[in-house]
Amino acid sequence: MNAAFAELTALLGPERVLTEPEHLAVYGFDGTAAISGEAGCVVFPECTAEVGEILKLATKYAAPVVSRGSGTGLSGGSVPSAGCIVLCLVRMDRVVELDSANLTILVESGVVTQTVAGLADAEGLLYPPDPGSMKISTIGGNVAENSGGLRGLKYGITRDYVMGLEVVLADGSIHWLGSKCVKDVAGYSMRDLFIGSEGTLGIITRVLLQLVPKPAARRTMLATYSRMDAAAATVSAIIAARIIPCTLEFLDRITIRCVEDFAHIGLPRDAEAILLMETDGHPAVVAEEAEQMERIARENGATDVTVAADAAEAARLATARRAAFSALARVSPTTILEDATVPRSELARMINHIQEVGARHRLRIGTFGHMGDGNLHPTFLTDERDHEEMERVELAMQEIFDFAVELGGTITGEHGVGLAKKRFLPRAIGESSVALMRQVKRALDPQGILNPGKIFD
Amino acid sequence: MNAAFAELTALLGPERVLTEPEHLAVYGFDGTAAISGEAGCVVFPECTAEVGEILKLATKYAAPVVSRGSGTGLSGGSVPSAGCIVLCLVRMDRVVELDSANLTILVESGVVTQTVAGLADAEGLLYPPDPGSMKISTIGGNVAENSGGLRGLKYGITRDYVMGLEVVLADGSIHWLGSKCVKDVAGYSMRDLFIGSEGTLGIITRVLLQLVPKPAARRTMLATYSRMDAAAATVSAIIAARIIPCTLEFLDRITIRCVEDFAHIGLPRDAEAILLMETDGHPAVVAEEAEQMERIARENGATDVTVAADAAEAARLATARRAAFSALARVSPTTILEDATVPRSELARMINHIQEVGARHRLRIGTFGHMGDGNLHPTFLTDERDHEEMERVELAMQEIFDFAVELGGTITGEHGVGLAKKRFLPRAIGESSVALMRQVKRALDPQGILNPGKIFD
Repeated sequence: MNAAFAELTALLGPERVLTEPEHLAVYGFDGTAAISGEAGCVVFPECTAEVGEILKLATKYAAPVVSRGSGTGLSGGSVPSAGCIVLCLVRMDRVVELDSANLTILVESGVVTQTVAGLADAEGLLYPPDPGSMKISTIGGNVAENSGGLRGLKYGITRDYVMGLEVVLADGSIHWLGSKCVKDVAGYSMRDLFIGSEGTLGIITRVLLQLVPKPAARRTMLATYSRMDAAAATVSAIIAARIIPCTLEFLDRITIRCVEDFAHIGLPRDAEAILLMETDGHPAVVAEEAEQMERIARENGATDVTVAADAAEAARLATARRAAFSALARVSPTTILEDATVPRSELARMINHIQEVGARHRLRIGTFGHMGDGNLHPTFLTDERDHEEMERVELAMQEIFDFAVELGGTITGEHGVGLAKKRFLPRAIGESSVALMRQVKRALDPQGILNPGKIFD
Repeated sequence: MNAAFAELTALLGPERVLTEPEHLAVYGFDGTAAISGEAGCVVFPECTAEVGEILKLATKYAAPVVSRGSGTGLSGGSVPSAGCIVLCLVRMDRVVELDSANLTILVESGVVTQTVAGLADAEGLLYPPDPGSMKISTIGGNVAENSGGLRGLKYGITRDYVMGLEVVLADGSIHWLGSKCVKDVAGYSMRDLFIGSEGTLGIITRVLLQLVPKPAARRTMLATYSRMDAAAATVSAIIAARIIPCTLEFLDRITIRCVEDFAHIGLPRDAEAILLMETDGHPAVVAEEAEQMERIARENGATDVTVAADAAEAARLATARRAAFSALARVSPTTILEDATVPRSELARMINHIQEVGARHRLRIGTFGHMGDGNLHPTFLTDERDHEEMERVELAMQEIFDFAVELGGTITGEHGVGLAKKRFLPRAIGESSVALMRQVKRALDPQGILNPGKIFD
């Protein structure tokens, strides 16, 4: 590999190729607990042509390449394989074009998601996907993982806003996939194949995103429950009333307590569940829907409903949800955030199952997540040094994922498979579907140098 | 092939295998002008398992298989290749489940699109994609072609509502791709690869669709223009006002006259363009947007704006657009409907170009289409028996597609590539992107028996 690293240094200059162990250590992790790896080098391309040259070199030396942005992934997708080239795209952070007439923005993949959101906002537009990591994660990573967020029910996920991609294949060839046209059916949607492919099919270098008009109004409220099933019934009743809120977030008792200890919002520590609900759109619609949602929450057993009087109070209420992961991460040495997902109608059964599994395996599991789209985050508060407990975590996870699949759900709603879920994938989607994915992988990356060992072996 | 047909007859019974020339003749066409083929037999499976058995036989005999539903396609995608097995899915027309709690409907692929729309409507829900053919086309065909419709700008296209697919591969294996979860990132989205793959990667047997709440109100209006650029300016100004109407349809002078001769709606025969505009949603929003749209149309040079007073008048106005293709099809022996598509901001340039090309090549081209999403239908009124004129049609098409691509658009917005656009594809997306698609095709259909020669050779 030293010959490959020397050629990379000749290509990019020594300041853009890291090979010292103390530098490499930093790039051995992403946001996933208990998973790490050791890169051979880290390179920082500044343009698509350089990415192409790097991949030609990688192909020549059959060297594995693991791409990454800010490294906020939660399934180990950008954790380096041993001795690989880490291709870090953070220097490719140009905003190429904000096209207000066509409601699109074209950015390099290293642009931080919040930057896109901010630019859209300044034009009276909205970039709807809002993954929890958006203040630091990059658009390229969001597309590679097909990230979700808090607004999935109403607005969908990252895939729904990607109109075009520039990708570099393993052989270094550069492809533009997609267009500014809402309708474009000229051949297979290779664009959609790359979205969510976790760096295993190609390197995403540019992203063309669709924006929408910014909603003129929003209303936030927080409902408190002494019984979890009452919270689930509220969600069902809201949908049955044909209301699609932009946010319908859930916190269980463990999470509520951790958040309150951390953020001192004034949450009821004895509540069994809280729902954070938000509606956005035209002021008349928001007023009407907020009133209906408050009434439905009370009718379905909410012990209290607080409607935010202004933006400041809305932000305070939203902190309850935004702070959930950080609050849980503080209380244990190792915090494993999962994202088992089920059809919305099965939420109550899934949450009960998680609690039952946690009790039976003597584990602390805080659960929160996106009730509107059935995307739950059972979060294991554990310690990776305790091998016996980790074995129970493993058993509990398998039971939780099996049940999610049994209910028509999935083992990952928004974090991806990466390394963390790989062992659960065949049982979840079937060996034959995994085989199908392998055939596609082989067709596009015959040497298998792109993010090897992620998603499947 | 006779051995294959005999085995098919043994499998399905003689009444579900057609081999007589007079029967086969009916299946030699789809909705595309001037393209036909001769099938070897036509088979009618009634369940997924039978489709699997048919494909196993096809693989055994290396026999080409062309799947179809109602045959309304407009790019020759379901025109049979010589001697092939036509796999006609119209008998697989069961509605499996309407899940009101999760806002989904699961149907077999032979279900007519209008049936889905009707079932959704009865539940207070909406299936938004509304291709022009929806009263006769099937959902399987819509998914295979990734059909568009009149509501693309606001609601998107077929892809945006497909949550899951059951597909049968060339080897007869059956795969379920997707789930009822809005968020599901367990591996590559094979589902999205099959959407729009025009029957070349697998046979779609079941489709899980997402529904949305039905808008409570809608308002329809028709604006008349003496200058085409004033119509385009209206569209730009509406978007700049951050209004996303559900419909923004355009008819040029030739189309207006043909429609008026055909449907006697009372359209102004001397107008250069008309815009059919519709907003839907909450009554308060609809009222406000309709008023703004009417004002914007007048400010941008509309000579007249008619706002429908009731549903009956709205239906009458909508006829202007719904009847466009039928009206144009009456006036010439051969009517070739194209769907060149450009970013919305380039519409005026594209329409001018089409008119200039038509005049220069002495051709009659009526143009109508979806202004909101840049999807135009330049329609050649010609006669396929006139070989000299057909040569000019060919030249004009190439010039129109080249210009669409130059403007950042595409050669097909919603009809697919099929046979009709195949020769234009490499120049439009580049040889290297076509090669990428070929690699995927080879991985999933190594013998190349599924709809051979469609999209690319």
